[in-house]
Amino acid sequence: MQDNMSENDTDEAERHRAKMAKRKAVQDAEVASKTIAKGLLMINTGPGKGKSTAAFGLALRSLGHGWRVGVVQFIKGRATGEQAALESFGDRVVWHTAGEGFTWETQDKARDIAACQRAWGIALGLMDDPTIGLVVLDELNIALRYDYLPLDEVVAKLTSRRNDLHVIVTGRNAKPALIEAADLVTEMGAVKHHFSAGVKTQAGIEF
Amino acid sequence: MQDNMSENDTDEAERHRAKMAKRKAVQDAEVASKTIAKGLLMINTGPGKGKSTAAFGLALRSLGHGWRVGVVQFIKGRATGEQAALESFGDRVVWHTAGEGFTWETQDKARDIAACQRAWGIALGLMDDPTIGLVVLDELNIALRYDYLPLDEVVAKLTSRRNDLHVIVTGRNAKPALIEAADLVTEMGAVKHHFSAGVKTQAGIEF
Repeated sequence: MQDNMSENDTDEAERHRAKMAKRKAVQDAEVASKTIAKGLLMINTGPGKGKSTAAFGLALRSLGHGWRVGVVQFIKGRATGEQAALESFGDRVVWHTAGEGFTWETQDKARDIAACQRAWGIALGLMDDPTIGLVVLDELNIALRYDYLPLDEVVAKLTSRRNDLHVIVTGRNAKPALIEAADLVTEMGAVKHHFSAGVKTQAGIEF
Repeated sequence: MQDNMSENDTDEAERHRAKMAKRKAVQDAEVASKTIAKGLLMINTGPGKGKSTAAFGLALRSLGHGWRVGVVQFIKGRATGEQAALESFGDRVVWHTAGEGFTWETQDKARDIAACQRAWGIALGLMDDPTIGLVVLDELNIALRYDYLPLDEVVAKLTSRRNDLHVIVTGRNAKPALIEAADLVTEMGAVKHHFSAGVKTQAGIEF
């Protein structure tokens, strides 16, 4: 930008300012219209990447506000970077890996069901802990999809949780009844995926 | 499950095992077919929640593998929970908030452009730092959408970065040229959003 602004530049700057002032008024009115504060039931679903990743990002954000966070992994059994990183927050993160890998790894339905029931029991305990502000139920959608847990009971317990508790559920193919009960549902769509271009699973990206 | 499994139960368990063994073979072949390891250019876009959140989840995952992470915020100027939480990783996280809020906050286009140019300069420095494994360019898509930065130059610099560097770009309305250059593009779709139900912006959830 030149020191001596031309008249056109000045006009354009003024038009921009007026447009943005108008937008700010709309934005401020919108913000003012929202008054409810409550714990949210959130779902990250869809075929794209970012469902669990965003849930752990939310855990990080919560930790930054001084909360305690509970995590239950229903399916995945593998140690991950996020688990290692969250260890630096000590007992402010309660982490449970109840899963033993995907269902094609165990090849044992009874064992998968038992692992999911164990995970759900742990989840209920975390949801009852008043010191915890956010509970991450990672891949719970997978457990529900395979009918490894009773959907009605899961939805009932999630909706009757205490009013200030945030819960985030991840996994593809979220059940309609869970979507119905949720406050926030994000569908991660895969516009483009590096696996299709022959790129393998890499540390720091997939786990 | 009963101690004495009926013949039906045994049959069903065996069918499950056979089906999962087959699926595992398919899965293993798929994994084996992917052999490329490289730094990825990733984009989180779309109207739904989780774009920046997943980028910070990825930062967390990278930190768990011992990497250093660089973050540049192009638009947002507000202090966030994720920023506070990432401070516990000391100098393994290099954080720059170059933005001063959304464009309707500053109402000054020249100032917004200057802030974006400053942010881009910082981003280039981080991308050149060989000790950094992941660079988060938060809301860069917004800067590009408003033409606050030259798209051609940004795409050229991103695609010519060193081979092992991962970069993640967030923000709505990713430019087609950037999508074309990317390895991974996820579109966050808003199936359901709590703002529509009058819930306000809350600590730990939105910031």
